[in-house]
Amino acid sequence: MTPDRVAAVIDFLALADRLKHVERRGRTVGPDGAARQENSAEHCWNVALVAILLHGEVVDPPDLGHVLAMIAAHDLVEVEAGDTFAYDEAHVLTQADRERAAADIVFGGLPPDLGARLRGLWEEFEEGVTPAARFAMACDRAQGFLQGVIGTGHWRHEGIAEAATHRRMNPARQVAPVFEALIATLYERARAGRMFAEPAP
Amino acid sequence: MTPDRVAAVIDFLALADRLKHVERRGRTVGPDGAARQENSAEHCWNVALVAILLHGEVVDPPDLGHVLAMIAAHDLVEVEAGDTFAYDEAHVLTQADRERAAADIVFGGLPPDLGARLRGLWEEFEEGVTPAARFAMACDRAQGFLQGVIGTGHWRHEGIAEAATHRRMNPARQVAPVFEALIATLYERARAGRMFAEPAP
Repeated sequence: MTPDRVAAVIDFLALADRLKHVERRGRTVGPDGAARQENSAEHCWNVALVAILLHGEVVDPPDLGHVLAMIAAHDLVEVEAGDTFAYDEAHVLTQADRERAAADIVFGGLPPDLGARLRGLWEEFEEGVTPAARFAMACDRAQGFLQGVIGTGHWRHEGIAEAATHRRMNPARQVAPVFEALIATLYERARAGRMFAEPAP
Repeated sequence: MTPDRVAAVIDFLALADRLKHVERRGRTVGPDGAARQENSAEHCWNVALVAILLHGEVVDPPDLGHVLAMIAAHDLVEVEAGDTFAYDEAHVLTQADRERAAADIVFGGLPPDLGARLRGLWEEFEEGVTPAARFAMACDRAQGFLQGVIGTGHWRHEGIAEAATHRRMNPARQVAPVFEALIATLYERARAGRMFAEPAP
């Protein structure tokens, strides 16, 4: 590895470190019982753990290395673009443009081959077409929903009724029966815990 | 997936969530310029990113899916055993026993096949013999050292002189030339930033 290449990798990793400071809406509860927002770096690790646990449960599973690399890379643009809350419709409308501009900055500093590799993983995830991307998407959404249940429901606090979550969760449920089973159980727990906001009258 | 299996996976993930609250000694600096301790969940994501970047740089690279799964699982026992600071010699002496007892708790709640899979990944990492485990170890140590540089040196604060770090970093440098190159550059930056403690007189 040439000195320039080493330096570019270190600079990229220093930039990527900022993902540890991008807050998501889901919460995690510490040993003292206090809840705080989950950050996107923790989220990426957690999604990887979900993928490892569920990978053996699907028919014709996608290559695990490809899936886990995609999961590790899928939120990197947030170090420039920030997290976009899935239920903030105005923010979601501008998300694609903001994240594409961020990708130019985040991946553009890497040596071209490494930048193309990571950008390709991010684009594949965003397009959501390949079996690997669909599996990763389902893990991502299942983890986000799980975090809502673990964090005892940010939905109520955010004013999100159960019906609003279905549009986001239904595509994940359809990826494989294991996601349907997992997400159905999580909905049961969320309902039992009265974690959703009441529907608007 | 049976309801019992789904419930066991959810309970395991709820336990694993605690890794987001296990603090390491390395620090990360937020957008406000304030440093805080990195946690082990963030660390695991970051090590995965290092592995993805360096995987193509080694001769005969180990299977990426296996490496990334090992990295995602390698610190899970800390949800019971806590993080052991590598330079705390008394704590390191008891680390293996504490972590083995923790593994029984952490992996024991999973369905047997999944528990054996994750425990096997953790044991392979700990034994450090296979090429995949050696690659993962080198990524883990490189990331820890990088975090010291990014966090502008917890070594000085902890009273750790440069010489003490060599015992930990030399095995990583020996895994492949790319680690030697990366770690040598990080040492240059740490020295230039006067990040190590002065040697005892």
